[in-house]
Amino acid sequence: MNRWLIENGTLVTMDPAAPIVHGWLAVEGSAIAGMGAGEAPEEEKRKARETVNGKGLLFLPGLVNTHGHAAMSLLRGLADDLALQDWLENHMWPMEAKFTGDDVYWGSSLAAAEMILSGTTTFVDMYDHMDRVAQVVEASGLRASLTRGVIGLCPPDVQTAKLNDAIQFARDWHGKADGRIQAMMSPHAPYTCPPDYIERIVAAAHELGLPLHTHMSESAAEVAQNVKDYGVRPVEHLDRLGLFSRPALVAHAVHLTDEEIALLAERGVAVSHNPVSNLKLASGVARVPDLLRAGVTVSLGTDSAASNNNLDLFEEIRLAALLHKGVSGDPTAVPAAEALRMGTVYGAKSIGLEGQVGMLKPGMKADLIAVSIAKPHFVPATDYVSHLVYAASGADVAHVWVDGKQLLRDRELLTLDIERIRFEAQRSFERLRG
Amino acid sequence: MNRWLIENGTLVTMDPAAPIVHGWLAVEGSAIAGMGAGEAPEEEKRKARETVNGKGLLFLPGLVNTHGHAAMSLLRGLADDLALQDWLENHMWPMEAKFTGDDVYWGSSLAAAEMILSGTTTFVDMYDHMDRVAQVVEASGLRASLTRGVIGLCPPDVQTAKLNDAIQFARDWHGKADGRIQAMMSPHAPYTCPPDYIERIVAAAHELGLPLHTHMSESAAEVAQNVKDYGVRPVEHLDRLGLFSRPALVAHAVHLTDEEIALLAERGVAVSHNPVSNLKLASGVARVPDLLRAGVTVSLGTDSAASNNNLDLFEEIRLAALLHKGVSGDPTAVPAAEALRMGTVYGAKSIGLEGQVGMLKPGMKADLIAVSIAKPHFVPATDYVSHLVYAASGADVAHVWVDGKQLLRDRELLTLDIERIRFEAQRSFERLRG
Repeated sequence: MNRWLIENGTLVTMDPAAPIVHGWLAVEGSAIAGMGAGEAPEEEKRKARETVNGKGLLFLPGLVNTHGHAAMSLLRGLADDLALQDWLENHMWPMEAKFTGDDVYWGSSLAAAEMILSGTTTFVDMYDHMDRVAQVVEASGLRASLTRGVIGLCPPDVQTAKLNDAIQFARDWHGKADGRIQAMMSPHAPYTCPPDYIERIVAAAHELGLPLHTHMSESAAEVAQNVKDYGVRPVEHLDRLGLFSRPALVAHAVHLTDEEIALLAERGVAVSHNPVSNLKLASGVARVPDLLRAGVTVSLGTDSAASNNNLDLFEEIRLAALLHKGVSGDPTAVPAAEALRMGTVYGAKSIGLEGQVGMLKPGMKADLIAVSIAKPHFVPATDYVSHLVYAASGADVAHVWVDGKQLLRDRELLTLDIERIRFEAQRSFERLRG
Repeated sequence: MNRWLIENGTLVTMDPAAPIVHGWLAVEGSAIAGMGAGEAPEEEKRKARETVNGKGLLFLPGLVNTHGHAAMSLLRGLADDLALQDWLENHMWPMEAKFTGDDVYWGSSLAAAEMILSGTTTFVDMYDHMDRVAQVVEASGLRASLTRGVIGLCPPDVQTAKLNDAIQFARDWHGKADGRIQAMMSPHAPYTCPPDYIERIVAAAHELGLPLHTHMSESAAEVAQNVKDYGVRPVEHLDRLGLFSRPALVAHAVHLTDEEIALLAERGVAVSHNPVSNLKLASGVARVPDLLRAGVTVSLGTDSAASNNNLDLFEEIRLAALLHKGVSGDPTAVPAAEALRMGTVYGAKSIGLEGQVGMLKPGMKADLIAVSIAKPHFVPATDYVSHLVYAASGADVAHVWVDGKQLLRDRELLTLDIERIRFEAQRSFERLRG
C-alpha cells in the first residue's frame, strides 16, 4: 500500500494529548500510520515512497463543513440584502425549480473546487438530484454526508415520490466512493414539512439506520409560526415527532430558549452553527456559548454560497470566535482553540465521524491540510492556533489530502478541471437566469 | 511623465455617475488621466509606455484603513481572548514600553507588507516613534495619515515632551513623501488624557492646521468612567474640550446615545468603525446603521494586528455588511455597495482626501488595486460589488498601485523586502518577549 511521509512539519493535531507536534507524520493507504516529534525514524524514511517537506507549513485536520447546499453556488451574488422568506420564496426557489441534474452537477463541482481550495475535506450537503452531488464527491475525492432534502408542501403522491427518492439515494450511495460518502435523511424544515411527513421520514431513517438532518429555528418568524401552527416551539415539535430518536444534526438553531438548549443536550442533538449566513439573512445570533456550556456539540457550516457568499470555513471559524465575544460582552467566549475544534473535531462528531476524521492521530483517516505560513500575517511565530483562527484564510491552504490521496498541491486542483467547471457553471447560471 | 494604460478591464469605480465600466483607464504620473468604456482610443494606446491587460481582473480604488497601530503587528497572537483593559494594561503596554525605534520600523514594515498584499493603499496610524513609521511609508510607497498618539497619564514635563514630539513630527513630515504623508494630532483617548492636556493638543492642531484623531467610547466601562470623572459622556466631554472644532476622526464609537450621534453629525465628526477589533475585545457592536442614517461619515479600520489579528480590510468591509444585519434584524442594513463605500470613498472623506483617492475618476490619484476573479468564488459573474464584499478576500488582490506607481505585481511586493522584514520582525518580537 502506498506509504508517504511528512517531515519537518508543525502538526496542529487537535488531540489534547499532544496539541502541537514539531515533527513527522506517515500515511499508509487512507490512514495516518504514525507520527512523532523531531526527525522521522530511519525506518519511516525507508518505507516512504514519497516525502513532503513540511518546512513553512502548518498541518492540521481537514475542515468539516456541516451545513450547505453546494449546487446553490450557481446563485452566488444573484440576490443579496433581503429577508430570509423573501430571499427564499422570490429569488432562490424560482431559480432552483429550474435546476436540472447537470446544473446540480456543475454547481456542486464549483463548490467542491472552492471547498478544496479553502481547506474543507468533509462537507454535509442537503439538496435535490443528490446522485449528481455524489458523483462530484466521487470525482473530487472529498468526503461527504449527503442527503436529499425534502419539502413536503405538496400533494401526498409527490411527498411519497420525494421520500422514495431520498430512500433510493441512501440505498444507492451510503458507504460508496471507498466509504467517503455517508447518507442522511432530511425533512427540509418543520415549516416546510407537515408533521406526519416528518414522522414518515424519521421512520425511514430508523429502517435504514441513518442519521437525520434538518433546518431548525433559523428565524424568529419561523419559530412564531411553529407555535401558532402546532402550539409548541420547534425543538419540542421535532422531539414529539421523533426526530431526535436518531442521531440528528440541526442547522442554524438561532432562536432557542434555555429549555430547548437543555433538551438538545439531553437528546444528544448536534447543532451546525452558520454565523455568516445567519448574519447576512438577519436571522440573528445563535446562543453558541450557552449551547457549548450545556454540552451540545456545535460545529460550523457555511450554508450555501447564495447566503454567505463563499465557502471558506476559516471565515466561519474566525467569526464563531469573534461574534459571540462581541455580542455577549464576554471576551473569553469561544476562545480560539474552541473555535478550531468546532471546525474540525466537533464537525466530525456531529456527523458520526468521531475518531475517524477531525484530528491528526495514528489510525485515523489521512484527511489533512497544509497551511503556508511564509506570509506576513503569520509573523511573528507565536501561537499557531491563534494565527489559524484570527489571521488565516482559506487562501493560505497549500495542500489538501483526503483518505491519504492528494487533492490540492501548491493550490493546484488535482482531481477537478477548474477551467471546465467555471465555464459550465457560468453557462448553467446564464441559462437559469433566462 | 510616465503614462500607462489598463485595457480590457472591469472598473468598479465607486463613482455613482458610472459605477461599473468595462473598458480602459490611463494613468499619467501620479493621477488617473482618463478612462472610458470599450476599447481604448488609438491615441491612448500610442501615448502609453506600458499596458496592463485587464482581462480577468476587477479594478477598484485602493482601500483606506482609517485606524490602526502598524507596529503592533509584532504582538500578533501574543495575547488573545482577554478584556480590553486587561489586554492593554497587562499585555500590550508592558511590551510596547520596550519598543525601540527599530522595533517600530520593522513592525510597521510588516504591517505595510500585509496591507499592500491585501489591497490597502492608504492607512491611518497612531503610535510612537512616528518618524520610523513615516520612513516605512516613504519606502513602501503607501499613502498615510500619521499621528504621534500621546497618553497624558504622566508628569507635566513628560506631557509637554510628548506633545512637542507630536508637533515636531507633524512639522517634519506633513506633506512629505511626494505628498503621500499627512499628519494629524492625537490625544490617545479621553480616559488616558486629562482635560487640560486635550485642550493643549487641540490648540496645537489649530496652530498647525491639522485634523485630530482619537479613540472614543470603545467600551462601556470607559464611558461609565468618563461620566464618573467628568459628569458627561465622552462625546460631550470632547466637544467641550474643542476636539470637534477641527476636522476630527474618532475610532470605535461603539457606545453612543441618540444625542451623541446627533452631535457627531452636527460637528461633522468622522467615525472609524473597527468591527473585528470591537468583537474580539468584546467591546460591543457600534450603531453603524444609525450613524449612517444620521449622516455621519463612517469608514473602516482594522485596528492593530494584536486585536484583529490581520490587516485585511476586505474582512472589515464584509463584516460591516454582515454584522449590522444580524444584530439589528434588518437584512437591508449596510448593503454591499455601502460597505464598499465605507472601505473606499468614506475612508478618503474621513481623512480629508475626498476627491483625491477612494474613487476611480480622471484627475484623482492613481491609487488602485486589481482583484483577480479567475477563481471559483467569483463564479458566476453576476454582481461584482456583491462578490467584492461578500466573497473576496485580500488574498485575491493581484496588483496594487499608489500615486501611479506599482507596489504589488502578481502578488510580488516591489518596494519591500519581505524576507528581511519577516526575519527582523521575528527577531524584534523575540527580544521584546525576553
